Amino acid sequence: MSAVDPRLSINQATIKYADLATALRVTADAGVEAIGLWREPVNEVGLDVATKMLADSGLRFTTHCRGGFFTLPAGAARDAALDDNRRAIDETAALAAAGAEGSTAVLVLVAGGLPEGSRDIVGARERVRDALGTLAPYAQSAGVTLAIEPLHPMFSSDRCVVSTLSQALDIAADFAPEVVGAAVDTFHIWWDPQVEEQIARAGREGRIATYQVCDWATPLPADVLLSRHYMGDGVIDFTALTRAVIATGYDRDIEVEIFNADIWSRPADVVVRETIESFARTVSPVLR
Amino acid sequence: MSAVDPRLSINQATIKYADLATALRVTADAGVEAIGLWREPVNEVGLDVATKMLADSGLRFTTHCRGGFFTLPAGAARDAALDDNRRAIDETAALAAAGAEGSTAVLVLVAGGLPEGSRDIVGARERVRDALGTLAPYAQSAGVTLAIEPLHPMFSSDRCVVSTLSQALDIAADFAPEVVGAAVDTFHIWWDPQVEEQIARAGREGRIATYQVCDWATPLPADVLLSRHYMGDGVIDFTALTRAVIATGYDRDIEVEIFNADIWSRPADVVVRETIESFARTVSPVLR
Repeated sequence: MSAVDPRLSINQATIKYADLATALRVTADAGVEAIGLWREPVNEVGLDVATKMLADSGLRFTTHCRGGFFTLPAGAARDAALDDNRRAIDETAALAAAGAEGSTAVLVLVAGGLPEGSRDIVGARERVRDALGTLAPYAQSAGVTLAIEPLHPMFSSDRCVVSTLSQALDIAADFAPEVVGAAVDTFHIWWDPQVEEQIARAGREGRIATYQVCDWATPLPADVLLSRHYMGDGVIDFTALTRAVIATGYDRDIEVEIFNADIWSRPADVVVRETIESFARTVSPVLR
Repeated sequence: MSAVDPRLSINQATIKYADLATALRVTADAGVEAIGLWREPVNEVGLDVATKMLADSGLRFTTHCRGGFFTLPAGAARDAALDDNRRAIDETAALAAAGAEGSTAVLVLVAGGLPEGSRDIVGARERVRDALGTLAPYAQSAGVTLAIEPLHPMFSSDRCVVSTLSQALDIAADFAPEVVGAAVDTFHIWWDPQVEEQIARAGREGRIATYQVCDWATPLPADVLLSRHYMGDGVIDFTALTRAVIATGYDRDIEVEIFNADIWSRPADVVVRETIESFARTVSPVLR
């Protein structure tokens, strides 16, 4: 068994079927020091209880997943989405305050896809920018960084019209780096011919709010959303990408976030153990 | 029924199960003036017979699909792939000479994915550049343009390490534009935040060897290779993209290339008719 890397954070999606209590317990019991949470399991117990549970766990809090869905046209549905993002910002601030020292108040944002029936991806992207303009002052007051997550272009139409790190940084450029940054997730951007150069730029601009890792492998499963793998089980060069991130001075925790039906079907403690091993083999060597 | 657009070309993959004779017949019978061919059905009858059949059809020849698969490391398999590309170049020249006036000698190249077990996408891309360097003089002598086709990033690992038009143009820049250009295929690049700017650049640099259209829709089918649709059945803005291509002065035919199991299951003449209608609704208005 490998030693647990002190910078490893388990994103709760990796153990999707664990409730909050279980997720915190298996993570801490394995000796992992940090966790990234999802809104649904937090809201299942309520924010007050969740913050107390997190504090009791002794874990650092790394990110809250997730806000966004900013591409709706003006109207009640968009207003409701923005209100929901304000709640997510509040949750993020509360959880970061409750986590152990070194916690980070980062809310990961998935921009949203094309509204039903729309072919206007340029307009959808403008609405993402507008939504950030609306939410940025609120996030700033709360001390929360909004992390724009570029998603793989196979999700451009139905989930996220922000597809590259370059694009995320262009959008973030209108805001202070402590208010709007980017999520650097290997799965989504490994293929980008500019990936190393854009990671360097993100670092220079102070925008790497979180670094998340998992692997890409083909053939893709029928539900491409679930095509994420343990590091080492696919084709991503974690040495090159992690080195690029670390070279920018990134000193935060590193989250493992995997959506994978096979992995989800296994006991949470087994998955945490496998995650520790995968991280030790692929990412840790670069951190030493 | 819509009039047949004089710039419409049927890529043979759209009627995949038609042999060469059938493909030529249903295309010409429908009043379409041009066709793009695939190597397998051409080689099924042999090049001499194929060129004669094409000449007899009266159709213009627009592209030959396809060469490439350039990412193999040095060795016998790579040498064989390069030899096969030389044959593909010869075929392209012969077919373009046999097609009606206005035919174009364009060989579409799919770069290839990561070799089995490799995580070195940077190295794979260098080998693509090397292969082009090897083949370019041969293509030039034959009067054939090699069209690098960026494929959607969901194919980066297993089919094509060239993922954006920008990247294809960067690679092509080492060569004369009449020898190495790019294939601009809406399905693969519609999501790119830089798509219009890169189409303009491709035009400025004289690199748009072929413009191919089909649509993107979700959910993706289990085999994502088959996720191409008639124009209008998905989310791509053909007005914006076609306008960008035409604004560069592109005056060649426009191919419809669709891989879709439902469409393939229908009679070829029906598919050609549906393609004519789809093209008339989505692309033709921009050409007037």
